Amino acid sequence: MSPRIEQHAAAERRPRRPHVVIVGGGFAGLSAARRLRRAPVDVTVLDRTNHHLFQPLLYQVATAVLSPGDIVAPIRHLLRKQRNTTVLMAHVHEVDPERRVVVVDEERREIAYDFLILAAGARHSYFGHDEWEPYAPGLKSIDDAEEIRRRFLLAFEEAEKSEDAAEREALLTIVVVGAGPTGVELAGMLSTTAHDAMHADFRRIDTRRTRVVLLEGGPRVLPTFPEELSARAQRDLESLGVQVRTRSVVTRIEEDAVYVGEERIPTRNVFWGAGNAASPLARGLGAPLDRAGRVQVEPDLSVPGRPELFVVGDLAAVTQDGKPVPGVAPAATQEGGWAADNVVRTLRGEPRRPFVYRDKGDLATIGRHRAVGSFSRGRIRLTGRTAWWLWLGVHIMYLAGFRNRASVFIQWAYAYFTYGRGVRLITGETRRTLPPVEATQAIRGW
Amino acid sequence: MSPRIEQHAAAERRPRRPHVVIVGGGFAGLSAARRLRRAPVDVTVLDRTNHHLFQPLLYQVATAVLSPGDIVAPIRHLLRKQRNTTVLMAHVHEVDPERRVVVVDEERREIAYDFLILAAGARHSYFGHDEWEPYAPGLKSIDDAEEIRRRFLLAFEEAEKSEDAAEREALLTIVVVGAGPTGVELAGMLSTTAHDAMHADFRRIDTRRTRVVLLEGGPRVLPTFPEELSARAQRDLESLGVQVRTRSVVTRIEEDAVYVGEERIPTRNVFWGAGNAASPLARGLGAPLDRAGRVQVEPDLSVPGRPELFVVGDLAAVTQDGKPVPGVAPAATQEGGWAADNVVRTLRGEPRRPFVYRDKGDLATIGRHRAVGSFSRGRIRLTGRTAWWLWLGVHIMYLAGFRNRASVFIQWAYAYFTYGRGVRLITGETRRTLPPVEATQAIRGW
Repeated sequence: MSPRIEQHAAAERRPRRPHVVIVGGGFAGLSAARRLRRAPVDVTVLDRTNHHLFQPLLYQVATAVLSPGDIVAPIRHLLRKQRNTTVLMAHVHEVDPERRVVVVDEERREIAYDFLILAAGARHSYFGHDEWEPYAPGLKSIDDAEEIRRRFLLAFEEAEKSEDAAEREALLTIVVVGAGPTGVELAGMLSTTAHDAMHADFRRIDTRRTRVVLLEGGPRVLPTFPEELSARAQRDLESLGVQVRTRSVVTRIEEDAVYVGEERIPTRNVFWGAGNAASPLARGLGAPLDRAGRVQVEPDLSVPGRPELFVVGDLAAVTQDGKPVPGVAPAATQEGGWAADNVVRTLRGEPRRPFVYRDKGDLATIGRHRAVGSFSRGRIRLTGRTAWWLWLGVHIMYLAGFRNRASVFIQWAYAYFTYGRGVRLITGETRRTLPPVEATQAIRGW
Repeated sequence: MSPRIEQHAAAERRPRRPHVVIVGGGFAGLSAARRLRRAPVDVTVLDRTNHHLFQPLLYQVATAVLSPGDIVAPIRHLLRKQRNTTVLMAHVHEVDPERRVVVVDEERREIAYDFLILAAGARHSYFGHDEWEPYAPGLKSIDDAEEIRRRFLLAFEEAEKSEDAAEREALLTIVVVGAGPTGVELAGMLSTTAHDAMHADFRRIDTRRTRVVLLEGGPRVLPTFPEELSARAQRDLESLGVQVRTRSVVTRIEEDAVYVGEERIPTRNVFWGAGNAASPLARGLGAPLDRAGRVQVEPDLSVPGRPELFVVGDLAAVTQDGKPVPGVAPAATQEGGWAADNVVRTLRGEPRRPFVYRDKGDLATIGRHRAVGSFSRGRIRLTGRTAWWLWLGVHIMYLAGFRNRASVFIQWAYAYFTYGRGVRLITGETRRTLPPVEATQAIRGW
């Protein structure tokens, strides 16, 4: 029995309620689902994974500070008390806005919707150089974070065994591409871990000599922050031993080197924090897309000409007062909830409301006692210890709903007081070889 | 420069100290290394992974109670204060007792030893049916535990999506093969998790109807415990909803069924806890082996005719008063330390001491408030709550040296008071297809 038929069968048993399908269990999708808790609708949440991911802390899994389990929670568990909501782990291949169905899984089953809230997010963009992916993994999923952790830890193990000085140096050189918040946090934490936490454990190498290079194509780090904070972040990074190189565009990545123009930097560890590309699901909607492939939505967050189809989160290009709304967790949360509200208003026959973004400010952490924060559109600026403690507090608070809050708190406290070793676990196989084309698409497709 | 040459180069700089190589960073190997902390020797510890694993809690990772990071610690971190000890992550292919070298990694580098303590452990044995492995993963490593967790959790996700009653039933049937401690603990915890923790999260299936079948070829569960405790453990398992079937020999395993004689049990989840096979490294020693491939050692734990070569832990067949010493963590810890002591005695010109096993008793947990314990050779027997609380205390205590003790404690407390959800994280790819021959050997070979 296909889900379409089942939908009709359900209709026979009770007055049929509108079916809202939400694609994606990230901040935007989860927020939309929660807002529909008491609405007279049936909700189906579809996600490729079984878990909601607290993405702002993903770099701490990649750098072996936290366990993957600390920053995830099963989507179905978070929504367990919403009796009108069903969660299915499924791979969405395509949206057919004409027939109002989403097509899922290998069997290409169709799930019909009355309203669709598309929150399928983004993956990395290698700016047309997809052949770089196996050498320069990005950081979007738990699998990504485990891959980075594996390579980072294995590099030291290999270096400890190596008898070749040049090889050892390439192993102890880490290049992070892109100095947005992800790149900055990753570079700062990798440097801290290598320099402070692992030093005593090795006999033949000195992990304090690990070279972390942060490459940024633009003129400064953290380009969305005020210039003054960019400068402070760069100084903080440098004090942690990170070599920051702005206006440095990567021209080529190989298994054992990164090229900046003609310059070759020998390295066995390249991590990608540079570009985002929206989920390819956006392309099938017949809607206008921006340069990054995101859907340019109406003020009410729906797709032009498709009032029943909303796009939110990193997949949506939302502008406000002529400026783009940033691709951060609070924005995604607000958009998801707003789209759900507009669904409810529509059902009640009320007019929809145009989305209003409430900017709560921006925080990025660089390392122990080092962070920068910008609030009230840059009028309030914080740096150093104040910003760092605020960052800690905010993140502990937002882990609410995760039972892992206590676990994260203990692990951070331990790391703080001991400059401790974290979760230095190497498991599984590396993805260092180029996956077959089909698998690549599966990773790319949402 | 090969390690052999390097060894000689080191000899020129200072009076050459004997080189003790330890293969394996499990309980036996780690205990041997620690005992040599102040000995006038250079120690090299080789392990295929970077971490020591607290194996008695591995089933809790497989059943999504604990995170992998909670029960591991980097071997090099545990030994960081021992300046005479180097830890290398390396794959040991072979031991050449004639030339006194171990051969490691793809490059087949040779590491020379004066003393070798071989603690390479065991893998699963499928009793000549290696073709069952992809359908019935065992539980020895973190990767194994994550594979079992992935299959267990995916089965419920698939069942929630399935429209086919027979498929749903096969997905909600779990078969555990072998009723030793691993099989009993796994079956009990899988049943508890399915029945108590996940029930509210699903809409289309009732996880309380999950069928867990424990198959045992012999006449009773926990065959190494007194008969009375076996009977109690079986009753406890049954009260948790586990179907216990003794004298049930598995004759065939396919992707979607297990056969007991001619009977076919449709299931998509088979987990293997039945047999052990010693590491194939044992075969190259020219020493007498027992039926399971373990090395029959002398009373001082060395190999007959090779006083410089010790075998300890699950790789050794040790007998005491005509009875085999069991393959448990305390025995491995004692053997490793004992072998190291005999190395030190030999260097001092003192006679070696024959190994004396101190039996500290046996504990197995079945579920909440359900455990059995046997002490003083079965004269003291514990069951129910008493045994269960004792089990908890002992395991929290033995996690010492792991900073994860606090984290484990919190997660257990949380699970205890809330019948909570644990670490229900699905990541990575399943190993459900038969790996290529070479990879299989790599898994098998230590």
